[in-house]
Amino acid sequence: MTIVMYERVGFEGRRPSPFSWRIRYALTHKGVDVEYRPVRFADVDTIKQLSGQNFVPIIVDGSKVVHDSWHIASYLEDRFPTQPPLFGDEVARRTTRFVNLWSYVLGPALQRLIYPDFIWCLAPEDREYFRSSREKALGQSLEEASADRPRWQAEFDAACRPLERLFAEQPFIAGPGPRYSDYLVFSVFQWARLGSPRDVVAPGTALAEWRSRMIKLFDGLADKFPGYPKEHAGSR
Amino acid sequence: MTIVMYERVGFEGRRPSPFSWRIRYALTHKGVDVEYRPVRFADVDTIKQLSGQNFVPIIVDGSKVVHDSWHIASYLEDRFPTQPPLFGDEVARRTTRFVNLWSYVLGPALQRLIYPDFIWCLAPEDREYFRSSREKALGQSLEEASADRPRWQAEFDAACRPLERLFAEQPFIAGPGPRYSDYLVFSVFQWARLGSPRDVVAPGTALAEWRSRMIKLFDGLADKFPGYPKEHAGSR
Repeated sequence: MTIVMYERVGFEGRRPSPFSWRIRYALTHKGVDVEYRPVRFADVDTIKQLSGQNFVPIIVDGSKVVHDSWHIASYLEDRFPTQPPLFGDEVARRTTRFVNLWSYVLGPALQRLIYPDFIWCLAPEDREYFRSSREKALGQSLEEASADRPRWQAEFDAACRPLERLFAEQPFIAGPGPRYSDYLVFSVFQWARLGSPRDVVAPGTALAEWRSRMIKLFDGLADKFPGYPKEHAGSR
Repeated sequence: MTIVMYERVGFEGRRPSPFSWRIRYALTHKGVDVEYRPVRFADVDTIKQLSGQNFVPIIVDGSKVVHDSWHIASYLEDRFPTQPPLFGDEVARRTTRFVNLWSYVLGPALQRLIYPDFIWCLAPEDREYFRSSREKALGQSLEEASADRPRWQAEFDAACRPLERLFAEQPFIAGPGPRYSDYLVFSVFQWARLGSPRDVVAPGTALAEWRSRMIKLFDGLADKFPGYPKEHAGSR
């Protein structure tokens, strides 16, 4: 049976959501048939009717509707037990949950590094909502929030330190090969690399090398959608 | 065969080292025979002769000498494969390595909350070395470094946030039961609870409840050695 996945679509076919990216990788890792259905902020009624809440990704598997990326990954693991594992044993799954909850520490500094660029990756009709909701949360304009770039880059680098040390020892978070822990963390970096023309990862680091390995997976899945819009690459 | 473990001993039999605590839990979890040999800073020559470096814990297993807590835990897992697992599968082990490298983020703020109290847990002849080496690293006195307690407590709470969220969902880092990931993180909290009369964990939190579960393990192993010296409990 084909799984249907609803995911956010941005400007001219871009895929701006890290939560959708991690599920795209999970579905590809599992090797299941998927029909991807792109949605916009304006499609919120469709999403709400299907899942009882506002956020994508959601997946529909026959009569089953699952939302929240962690629940979706867990669902896929249990639904397709003979396909390649996303976790491994139960200890690996629960420890991966820690990685998932930890990964939120990457957000605050990264948002400030990305937001004013990222807005151009969204569909034009979604930009005003994005700007006003984020500016309300930050208590300042996107441009003010990201003005002190060296500060946020230093904070982001500090948050990445456990990853840098890990990748100096092993190729993936899960060890010799990638699993869901890698996909979920990579999706944050994927969001940053597609959402801004400026790289937040220093070249030559173990982190940069891991990211390169991740980008190459599944025949270069990370680059199957448009990158940062060139017409805005020099806008700041 | 009995494993010999060398560990730091403090004032009147106290066990002040988080790295030794995590290995004590690992050895107890594995259920192997252990002979514990307490050492002091002054015993550095013994340690160096045995292991080629200065730090405890080290374990000696026949002709094999292993140092560094992560290497010791990995060694024990491979050496006693039929005893209860410290990790689980290879993915769990490698993901636990991430937890281990992540746990260093707890250190900087916690040190500042603890150090001026902690010094009284060390053997009197070790205190001057501890003070001078730590003050050199901090660039200020231990008392100055910890003066702004609300700031360091807030920073420590922020570092603990992934744990707080995790324990709201599951009883241990490894899931339904404790594994090495729990022991290594707990050892940091154990260091804090034995090393200061002031609690750094807010009562009623999911983190506090996890710590209580950890303290009860193995017939209350966490309380088998003396706690904070009462005569210094009101010294700050």
